[in-house]
Amino acid sequence: MNHLLTEIAEQPAALAGLLDRVVPDLDRLASDVWRDDVRYVVLVARGSSDNAARYGQYLFGLQHRLPVALATPSLGHLYGVTPEFSGAAVIAVSQSGQSPDVVGVLDAARRQGRPALAITNDPGSPLADAATEVLDLGVGSERAVAATKTYTSSLLALALLSTARTLAPERDRLLTELRQLPELVSAALDVDVEAAAHALRDVTHLLVAGRGLNYGTAFEAALKVRELSGVVAEAFSPPDLLHGPIAAVAAGAAALLIAPDEPSLANQHELIEALRGRHARITTVSGDRSVLAAADAALELGAQPAAWLTPITTIVPVQRLAAAMTRDRGRDLDAPEGLTKITRTQ
Amino acid sequence: MNHLLTEIAEQPAALAGLLDRVVPDLDRLASDVWRDDVRYVVLVARGSSDNAARYGQYLFGLQHRLPVALATPSLGHLYGVTPEFSGAAVIAVSQSGQSPDVVGVLDAARRQGRPALAITNDPGSPLADAATEVLDLGVGSERAVAATKTYTSSLLALALLSTARTLAPERDRLLTELRQLPELVSAALDVDVEAAAHALRDVTHLLVAGRGLNYGTAFEAALKVRELSGVVAEAFSPPDLLHGPIAAVAAGAAALLIAPDEPSLANQHELIEALRGRHARITTVSGDRSVLAAADAALELGAQPAAWLTPITTIVPVQRLAAAMTRDRGRDLDAPEGLTKITRTQ
Repeated sequence: MNHLLTEIAEQPAALAGLLDRVVPDLDRLASDVWRDDVRYVVLVARGSSDNAARYGQYLFGLQHRLPVALATPSLGHLYGVTPEFSGAAVIAVSQSGQSPDVVGVLDAARRQGRPALAITNDPGSPLADAATEVLDLGVGSERAVAATKTYTSSLLALALLSTARTLAPERDRLLTELRQLPELVSAALDVDVEAAAHALRDVTHLLVAGRGLNYGTAFEAALKVRELSGVVAEAFSPPDLLHGPIAAVAAGAAALLIAPDEPSLANQHELIEALRGRHARITTVSGDRSVLAAADAALELGAQPAAWLTPITTIVPVQRLAAAMTRDRGRDLDAPEGLTKITRTQ
Repeated sequence: MNHLLTEIAEQPAALAGLLDRVVPDLDRLASDVWRDDVRYVVLVARGSSDNAARYGQYLFGLQHRLPVALATPSLGHLYGVTPEFSGAAVIAVSQSGQSPDVVGVLDAARRQGRPALAITNDPGSPLADAATEVLDLGVGSERAVAATKTYTSSLLALALLSTARTLAPERDRLLTELRQLPELVSAALDVDVEAAAHALRDVTHLLVAGRGLNYGTAFEAALKVRELSGVVAEAFSPPDLLHGPIAAVAAGAAALLIAPDEPSLANQHELIEALRGRHARITTVSGDRSVLAAADAALELGAQPAAWLTPITTIVPVQRLAAAMTRDRGRDLDAPEGLTKITRTQ
């Protein structure tokens, strides 16, 4: 087995390990990051981690009414400007912890006396050095170029950080839901992806739609399909897709709908109708009967977690679909052409 | 002449009118929006206005070190959650002022006692009603479906708002630079776009790259090309493009580089080399000698404004390029198939 499929399969154990290590530490995490003077959050990330950050944006808004800014780390080296982070908790997400732009933003936050959390898979990285607090993903080295276990564990780290801001009995309810995750991710590994891969075998352009908590899932799904299989995949929210690109959808065009059981599911129905009207081919990842019935092919979800955790389970069959699409196109799963593991963006 | 080309040509007068109306009012605008307790900014927008908001994100960071969050207005109706805007100035950008999601966010900010500014072309709109302060674009009705004069005037409104946060002598310098805009936009209307349109006549997929202040310009360029001509156009920052999609660039693929004279220009050189190595066809909008020399076709910029204002002039020849590409494909400029003027997103 290659690295990518091995690492996809490691996710239940990786998530269980992260839960075991961080749950006993929630109060310390909370006292460092969620200080009384925090009024909003700045998330700093690039690449797959940026898709994880989108999840954090919705999650902190949903559970704590916190506005979240996604940082523009290029301000520093392009224009020589460091933002003033008064009132912010600054959280960087980077599996390697190497990206100089991301390190620079976290370093500035710490120097300004702000909470500066590094979520990283390398506690010895420059990012961890720049932080006031480190949340170590601890999922072992990721050898495939495409991020999988570091992506889902970054989502879980954000979910744990959000949980750390709650008190009992709310916290107990969230912890119960969190503890079901490894088993539910195991089940997600058993979702059949072959029929969907077959349906997409001649596709060169894929529209991916998701919204709300799963807006980031749509971006991550598009990124995985694109970087692995070479298929041009683009992420949209259903209303944005309906407002514009739907005009260019021709008969036979392919769309992937991210539709797990959470409130944004309702948004998929109008999109399905529009795609049907244009004779597009619909693939979905969903457990919803009416969405499944309207699709040409599906990654059919079984038992699903609480709504706020659906991004963690929903991406798993999509990772496997991207791998199957890649295999069908005769490409290398571990070393996609032209990709490098670390975003050394300056 | 159709509405689109008329409205593109109206931009110098529209911008001059906006300057005349708002400049005398900068102190009042500042006292309402830039209160002493403002620590960060929340920008709320959709569609073309969202691309204007990206400009605001970089501009407020650059000129005032202010972190900027782009709001997730769907939190309200999907999850029934209203963010807590303590410490924020909330600024909505919407030409029509009709989008219920955007109105909802501004309404919440005002009810929470926060500065809540509406930048809109309709001072009688629900958005204006929800605001504590209205910045009326006042550019007259926009009849073409694709936004042009409301886009550049929204950028100018954000530039004026940023200027309102400065004091003399800094403010005087910025005002001098602002007052040159109508003439520079007039000159941008004379940039020859026919050679570039000809070079792109058989293109069906276009990569658009821009960064920093002009990251939003890349998104707006891609949106205009896509909604008008039907060509699949995607926006990236140069490092993001180099990190991933470059792998899928084949000989003959087409890229449009947004490269006016501002610090992000430096980022285009590595991208040009990579695109050249893959025998891609490069079109650029630039005044830089070395970028122009490396391109297959160009929208050659003449006199350019100060760096912070380049997004306002640079999009103008791109609007005209998108129109020419649309004409070359036999499509209707005023009513692109499948598009509606107002984003009534819920």
